[in-house]
Amino acid sequence: MRSFALLGAGFIGNVHAPNLFDHPRVDFTLVADTDSQRARDVAERYGARAATIDEIFAADIDAILIASSSDTHAHYVERAAAAGKAIFCEKPVDLETSRATQAIEAVQRAGVPMMIGFNRRFDASHAALAGAYRRGELGRAEIVQMTCRSQAMPPLDYLKVSGGQMHDQAIHFFDLLCWLTDDVPVEIHVLGDALSDPQVAKIGDIDTLIVSLRMASGTLAQLDCTRRTGYGYDERIEIFGAEGMAESRRQPYRHLTIAKGNQCVSDGFHESWFERIKPTFYAGLDAFVQALHGETDDYPDETAALRAQRIADAALHALKRGAPVTLEWP
Amino acid sequence: MRSFALLGAGFIGNVHAPNLFDHPRVDFTLVADTDSQRARDVAERYGARAATIDEIFAADIDAILIASSSDTHAHYVERAAAAGKAIFCEKPVDLETSRATQAIEAVQRAGVPMMIGFNRRFDASHAALAGAYRRGELGRAEIVQMTCRSQAMPPLDYLKVSGGQMHDQAIHFFDLLCWLTDDVPVEIHVLGDALSDPQVAKIGDIDTLIVSLRMASGTLAQLDCTRRTGYGYDERIEIFGAEGMAESRRQPYRHLTIAKGNQCVSDGFHESWFERIKPTFYAGLDAFVQALHGETDDYPDETAALRAQRIADAALHALKRGAPVTLEWP
Amino acid sequence: MRSFALLGAGFIGNVHAPNLFDHPRVDFTLVADTDSQRARDVAERYGARAATIDEIFAADIDAILIASSSDTHAHYVERAAAAGKAIFCEKPVDLETSRATQAIEAVQRAGVPMMIGFNRRFDASHAALAGAYRRGELGRAEIVQMTCRSQAMPPLDYLKVSGGQMHDQAIHFFDLLCWLTDDVPVEIHVLGDALSDPQVAKIGDIDTLIVSLRMASGTLAQLDCTRRTGYGYDERIEIFGAEGMAESRRQPYRHLTIAKGNQCVSDGFHESWFERIKPTFYAGLDAFVQALHGETDDYPDETAALRAQRIADAALHALKRGAPVTLEWP
Amino acid sequence: MRSFALLGAGFIGNVHAPNLFDHPRVDFTLVADTDSQRARDVAERYGARAATIDEIFAADIDAILIASSSDTHAHYVERAAAAGKAIFCEKPVDLETSRATQAIEAVQRAGVPMMIGFNRRFDASHAALAGAYRRGELGRAEIVQMTCRSQAMPPLDYLKVSGGQMHDQAIHFFDLLCWLTDDVPVEIHVLGDALSDPQVAKIGDIDTLIVSLRMASGTLAQLDCTRRTGYGYDERIEIFGAEGMAESRRQPYRHLTIAKGNQCVSDGFHESWFERIKPTFYAGLDAFVQALHGETDDYPDETAALRAQRIADAALHALKRGAPVTLEWP
Repeated sequence: MRSFALLGAGFIGNVHAPNLFDHPRVDFTLVADTDSQRARDVAERYGARAATIDEIFAADIDAILIASSSDTHAHYVERAAAAGKAIFCEKPVDLETSRATQAIEAVQRAGVPMMIGFNRRFDASHAALAGAYRRGELGRAEIVQMTCRSQAMPPLDYLKVSGGQMHDQAIHFFDLLCWLTDDVPVEIHVLGDALSDPQVAKIGDIDTLIVSLRMASGTLAQLDCTRRTGYGYDERIEIFGAEGMAESRRQPYRHLTIAKGNQCVSDGFHESWFERIKPTFYAGLDAFVQALHGETDDYPDETAALRAQRIADAALHALKRGAPVTLEWP
Repeated sequence: MRSFALLGAGFIGNVHAPNLFDHPRVDFTLVADTDSQRARDVAERYGARAATIDEIFAADIDAILIASSSDTHAHYVERAAAAGKAIFCEKPVDLETSRATQAIEAVQRAGVPMMIGFNRRFDASHAALAGAYRRGELGRAEIVQMTCRSQAMPPLDYLKVSGGQMHDQAIHFFDLLCWLTDDVPVEIHVLGDALSDPQVAKIGDIDTLIVSLRMASGTLAQLDCTRRTGYGYDERIEIFGAEGMAESRRQPYRHLTIAKGNQCVSDGFHESWFERIKPTFYAGLDAFVQALHGETDDYPDETAALRAQRIADAALHALKRGAPVTLEWP
Repeated sequence: MRSFALLGAGFIGNVHAPNLFDHPRVDFTLVADTDSQRARDVAERYGARAATIDEIFAADIDAILIASSSDTHAHYVERAAAAGKAIFCEKPVDLETSRATQAIEAVQRAGVPMMIGFNRRFDASHAALAGAYRRGELGRAEIVQMTCRSQAMPPLDYLKVSGGQMHDQAIHFFDLLCWLTDDVPVEIHVLGDALSDPQVAKIGDIDTLIVSLRMASGTLAQLDCTRRTGYGYDERIEIFGAEGMAESRRQPYRHLTIAKGNQCVSDGFHESWFERIKPTFYAGLDAFVQALHGETDDYPDETAALRAQRIADAALHALKRGAPVTLEWP
Repeated sequence: MRSFALLGAGFIGNVHAPNLFDHPRVDFTLVADTDSQRARDVAERYGARAATIDEIFAADIDAILIASSSDTHAHYVERAAAAGKAIFCEKPVDLETSRATQAIEAVQRAGVPMMIGFNRRFDASHAALAGAYRRGELGRAEIVQMTCRSQAMPPLDYLKVSGGQMHDQAIHFFDLLCWLTDDVPVEIHVLGDALSDPQVAKIGDIDTLIVSLRMASGTLAQLDCTRRTGYGYDERIEIFGAEGMAESRRQPYRHLTIAKGNQCVSDGFHESWFERIKPTFYAGLDAFVQALHGETDDYPDETAALRAQRIADAALHALKRGAPVTLEWP
């Protein structure tokens, strides 16, 4: 058993709360939020105790799950590290890489375990893809193809504070790419534009992008992202290797097919990213609990957080330059 | 809000308990079991109170969910009816149709709503199939095909008290068939055998069967059932109509495909019936709660329970006779 | 090389002619038809010589492909047998089993090889299914499921001379069933009706049927047939065995999918049975040529022709009796 | 009817010959080859007359199909143009763009119709994709994804004269991209390497490449190519548009699926590119014949040939530069 406090009882905090309640090796002890009523509601429903934020850092608990607003993450990460707590932090640590680095250095100095919410890794099909690749079933990766297409353009107000499409959306796939291939990109090229909505360009962002990457081992990789499909959430990953190809496929939300005329009409994709990746929140928490018990080290730690952020930074630089950018890794 | 008591805290009671806890319009009040420790464990976990069985029937609650052992169902149904409670009863009401009829008549006299646990109706894909048929997208049903194949032979000890393959397994599809087509069978023919395991024949049961039915409207229907596949749980339903065909397809448990050599190897089906139909328990409870609020009458009520049981009786008779049996409906 | 004469230059003769021309081990020598102009047209196009029917039986050739009208088959089979020619005969040998038996006995007395046009056996996917079963990949067959649904009701004038749905359509699947499982049915039950078109009942035929069969080994089998789908030609076969299940799937006619709204719209099935099974005509001819060279004996010979016809007779008897019929085999 | 001469009776000539024979509006008159025996063999089989190459250009025929060795194409194109014949030329016109341009200018001066063998356009599924896009079903294209993966590394001797992966393989998809979207690329970036076989690097070529393109309209496009998969021929195209997404899917070579253990094993892809695209040769010829009758202008003409070649040149330049290259179009 590990005792957890939840910091943040908004949308994403309410996603984590039932998982903290359900997990057989988690003791869901405390919950805090700047809005104390929200904290009390979560506490009552899931048998935890509402607390102040200060109480959480002082409490005798094992881990803190940081699900507060993004601009507070780095600060809370540092406080949790100082308090010697294990940290599960929603992404990003901070939109500024320098600030994120600072916080992560604090974590590393404190020697506490930290996991970042790159929970797409815990999608069952993506994880099976990783397993197949690691077992050598595909041989050395030669080409990786990733598609990440959100269903609907988020509100402009969200986009303005999101960190931009690269750091908000594409970054998940930079992490997946490194994790799946156990490799890092050394060269990156990006084409991007505001094709879905010209308003996006006015706030200095893009909504459609394609990325080409050369990995240190020579593997070539492609990613395409868009902010809105109109047909649901569309995500797929494919690894083409020297000895085979594996695909974590698009997923239908239901399994009905109707044959009429000369067509077969089947159910489409999940309504949005949330329906698609919902099970990954529990699976991610479970991995973190396993890590706290020393049973796994396959989870996105603070190094992975920083790695993905550096790639996103380079990708954004490449986009703006209109030319490839090289990356060097220590 | 409707207040519920749970009667039975064994395997299936523990499937229902978190759903009673999670449902926003359910107040999970009491839980009882002949093993009081099991009741206390469920009570503690889900914020209910452990009670005796007598207390449950006396309590000021709206509904009782009967999840006790099958041989107690009819008795508890009658007590719940006498107490004027709404009833959600796991199937069967009783393995003996005469006894089940008696209990159901008590329910009807009492005028309380009752739902039987034919929850495959609440599978999202099956429900979408029903919706397509009812909207007229397929025209009049001409052929229905149903496949129900369990993954692994249950233990003989279970089979002995299961009521037999027809009443334990096939009965779900007799209900589905009537519900999907809004029709009843008037003629039924069965071939069956113990093909998977000769031990099954020794206890007077079968493990493999195929059924042909003619419905009152003229629709023809087929069902095949087996107790063990060795490749996971395999369920599909197809309605062929005058204007189109719809299929609630087999479902993979994950979405990985690997291409090697000249083959594509994909993830197979769910490990067992439970993984496949798990979401139907919540959906079934939700339908019952809607029914209690007068929002739907599309749920398997006591009449459906009796109807399916009469079909299973006739099917068993046809199997033993080696000839078709006709059914008459009031 | 084997020299062939083609007897019949109508629709089906024109299907065979280019295959006779293309096959590298066939010398397409002669073609005859009661309409001599049709024979000349085929002859000119494919480098053969137009002949009279009598000339064909007298000619120094190896094999005769009988593609004339059905009511002439038995007579021509007997003449070909008398002339010592190998015989490829479109089905049926004769709609009357007694007459077919007579012709087949003549073939057997003459000792000439004969193949009947049950060419669905040569569908690549069905053949792969047979291969998998024979290699033991599925274990002993426990359930076989077959679906055969034609796209559009044939004209009544055709239906009147077709021999009826059982002998015209279902018979192909009686042959497939025996061939796939290397087994014969010992009990058969049928439900059938004119559900697609009431006119069909007026000519004493049916257009929709479901069949249940028990095979000598104990395997249970199901078949459903209809004369019209409205959505193209729909054929599938599934063998469920003790160690696995294999399916020769429905086949799309093209491979386009469009995702819009919450649906995926894919191309449906082949427009008609002909588009679906067209490649089997060449493959069937090729098997016959191999047989003539002593390279295979896996083809539908005269015994298979008679076997399928006896099953269709029994099935029709079962349909009319409204009760199962047993079959005995020598 | 249009009369055709075939120039070249090698592998690809023998692919075209039966189509020339089969097409109802083609009169297959003459065939020539530097190896006169090969010409005689084709002539005899398909009812044409063997001729010398000079005779072909002098003959009273409508069209010449140039299927000779690549280095002779430009010369024969010019001779055919000078003779006023319609031209169907296998790609490339010439590996040198300047030489190809010269030949094409001769064609344009002569005013004769010319089609280049970019026959993947005539794949039924790709053509249906084009149709859906042109009918506006997808809205404006925002992202195009193309995958072209050959099954097995060709012999080095072939690679040396192939023109390189970009001009031999990728070029087909540059044509498809422009045709599908009715657009041209204005910016192109390439990463490529010899990942499959280091020998390929020694002859100055690559075997694996990924391409990013920005089209004039703003559409972004990706292509990945490899010379060997080990699992058959793998080709797919996807257009993501403002109102929907359409995919011309990977194609299985057969339709068998086996469920065993927890896996479904299905038939993989076509053995090689030839099995996959074989039907496009007839369909391409048919389009050309339609064009000769003024019934269509949707075929890859000499302008398309030059356009694809210019893109391939730019892509190769981008690969060598390690930076994006811009293209300008008149």
